[in-house]
Amino acid sequence: MTIQSFHPPVRTLMGPGPSTVNPRILEAMSRPTLGHLDPVFVTMMDEMKVMLRYAFNTNNELTMPVSAPGSAGMEMCFVNLVEPGDKVIVCQNGVFGGRMKENVERSGGSAVMVEDAWGTAVDPDKLRAALQANPDAKVVAFVHAETSTGAISDAKTIAALAHEHGCLVIADTVTSLAGSPLLVDEWELDAVYSGTQKCLSCVPGLSPVTFSKAAIERVTTRKSKVQSWFLDLNLILGYWGGGSKRAYHHTAPVNTLYALHEALVILQEEGLENSWARHQKNHNALRAGFEAMGLQFVVPEGERLPQLNAVSVPEGVDEAAVRSILLKEYNLEIGAGLGAMAGKIWRVGLMGYASSQTNVLFCLGALDAVLSSMRAPIISGVAVDAARAVYK
Amino acid sequence: MTIQSFHPPVRTLMGPGPSTVNPRILEAMSRPTLGHLDPVFVTMMDEMKVMLRYAFNTNNELTMPVSAPGSAGMEMCFVNLVEPGDKVIVCQNGVFGGRMKENVERSGGSAVMVEDAWGTAVDPDKLRAALQANPDAKVVAFVHAETSTGAISDAKTIAALAHEHGCLVIADTVTSLAGSPLLVDEWELDAVYSGTQKCLSCVPGLSPVTFSKAAIERVTTRKSKVQSWFLDLNLILGYWGGGSKRAYHHTAPVNTLYALHEALVILQEEGLENSWARHQKNHNALRAGFEAMGLQFVVPEGERLPQLNAVSVPEGVDEAAVRSILLKEYNLEIGAGLGAMAGKIWRVGLMGYASSQTNVLFCLGALDAVLSSMRAPIISGVAVDAARAVYK
Repeated sequence: MTIQSFHPPVRTLMGPGPSTVNPRILEAMSRPTLGHLDPVFVTMMDEMKVMLRYAFNTNNELTMPVSAPGSAGMEMCFVNLVEPGDKVIVCQNGVFGGRMKENVERSGGSAVMVEDAWGTAVDPDKLRAALQANPDAKVVAFVHAETSTGAISDAKTIAALAHEHGCLVIADTVTSLAGSPLLVDEWELDAVYSGTQKCLSCVPGLSPVTFSKAAIERVTTRKSKVQSWFLDLNLILGYWGGGSKRAYHHTAPVNTLYALHEALVILQEEGLENSWARHQKNHNALRAGFEAMGLQFVVPEGERLPQLNAVSVPEGVDEAAVRSILLKEYNLEIGAGLGAMAGKIWRVGLMGYASSQTNVLFCLGALDAVLSSMRAPIISGVAVDAARAVYK
Repeated sequence: MTIQSFHPPVRTLMGPGPSTVNPRILEAMSRPTLGHLDPVFVTMMDEMKVMLRYAFNTNNELTMPVSAPGSAGMEMCFVNLVEPGDKVIVCQNGVFGGRMKENVERSGGSAVMVEDAWGTAVDPDKLRAALQANPDAKVVAFVHAETSTGAISDAKTIAALAHEHGCLVIADTVTSLAGSPLLVDEWELDAVYSGTQKCLSCVPGLSPVTFSKAAIERVTTRKSKVQSWFLDLNLILGYWGGGSKRAYHHTAPVNTLYALHEALVILQEEGLENSWARHQKNHNALRAGFEAMGLQFVVPEGERLPQLNAVSVPEGVDEAAVRSILLKEYNLEIGAGLGAMAGKIWRVGLMGYASSQTNVLFCLGALDAVLSSMRAPIISGVAVDAARAVYK
């Protein structure tokens, strides 16, 4: 065989994630590996828990990274909180609500779907009606920041409704964590999962999660065993749950955890509110540029995630060809649509380290040039200046 | 808050894993992150599949790394191959057979346990009897290389017996892959999982797996849905299964996959048989040193894994204190016993990059010094020379 070492090109990652990883994080990840039960490593884990609580705005004792991607974090929430026969109300306004339904059903529960149009926020009135129609529901699940469409939902109102009806709340915050206000304790979210590869600018592969006391009580008083050994919180508590002695559960992904630790140190240095404000500012500039070009946002104003900007592909434009040229000639990655939106939208991420003035101007300039060369129906030559005006 | 960047000490990792990671792999992992659907990344994935087939000695099309630790690879094998009501024969001779039982039961199956003493190989005669007594069994599961004791079992004979009785075979090769002969196709193993943090000297966090055609047929003809969305092979095939177009399933742990790619390039460069021979040679030297000191191996000769050497703690010695001194004063990690063997044995790993003459001599010298200082009942001052003689 003659396979050689892999040397990737340097891309600017402005899709739905992974976003460009801060070089400080890449360097931290390459530090020497420790054993996963080494006391020095355990100290690092404790620091990480403190910093994750800061990022989530929570005092939840059980706040930790799952040793697998966000999909596994989602599955951890469902397999632990849902028992066979349980009814779960799932608010769906994009791809990830559909994945939640799969998780409910595979956990032996039944899902009551509350559907909203893709690209809009979850409508609390529909949820209220579903809660009234299903007084036996035990859990409400929703996506705070729909990565497939770029819509943000009102987590506080959704959680309050769920609690009024005695339900626990599962929230997907994969794309919101560190990019948009997320107040786990104030909003009383019970089981929350996220990802590392979005607004934390860390490598993909981990899923930060946090669980309220009510959620832990639900888990520890289950009648049936959690169907997943790997994701059983009762077992994982022995490793991440605190105390000086860690019980072996699985081998932690040591170096990826170094990366997340560094990502959280960087978040602390900037300050959470400053990070939110930076994401908002760069969104405002990108938006000014898009609007000047004549590109239309998919999500109505007021329901838009600043870190994920979904715009409609102009009439007659081959959207895949545009992405391909951006990738090959500009080393710039933007995202395609998922599911029902495939072929119809682009998703432009401004997440974490990648949420910068440089990237906003670069992306607008590149997109303007590519679309103009294809004679797309846009107003060319004005986007970059419109964005620059926002920074002045 | 005042949490600073984490700078780990440089340890020599000679426990049960993670083993010391080759610096080439750490460097490769820190290369710039690509999107998980980037065509360049997809090419790297294809190369990885080729190299994993080489490491496993298989032509199985479905050979890939699971995006989570070995425990998740184990769970993938069980949740896909076991349906509710299925009977599974589990051969247990250490900790990991017990974990297999948990996986069978959580998948809705029933486990028939074939027990052997911890520290010995699986006895094929006991398995034969269990197969005869349970003609309705559908799967036989066993651990090729028991990481908790350092015993290797005769995978070829176990698999042949299982197939004679119409069972599929699940094999745990977490510690054997790249360290001891492992011939997936020749031995006809159906579902095989491993880890990256042992004899591949890669970072922890991934689980290479390979599935035979018979295993895939079992999965694709299941009556019930696989209970895990994250680990459902029917879904994962769309991403890893080949073809030029990858379907999005979850966000791959891009940089950790760079690390595994590099680990496999290194394995190719050395050659698989040379890697096995190196592990055997270093084991022979370590063994000569241990025996010269008077330390007793836990596992009978002929059933010992060269890469994981379990020895009994000498009478009257505080085993935890020894490990603590080695860690603090020598930056050397060796492993404790697990489960029933906690407090009674040490596990000394010689895995991958850490399986070297330097490490053998360093470990023997350090252990000799620490045990002598504690006035342990050993023969001091002879171990290092005994090992050196093996290398001459």
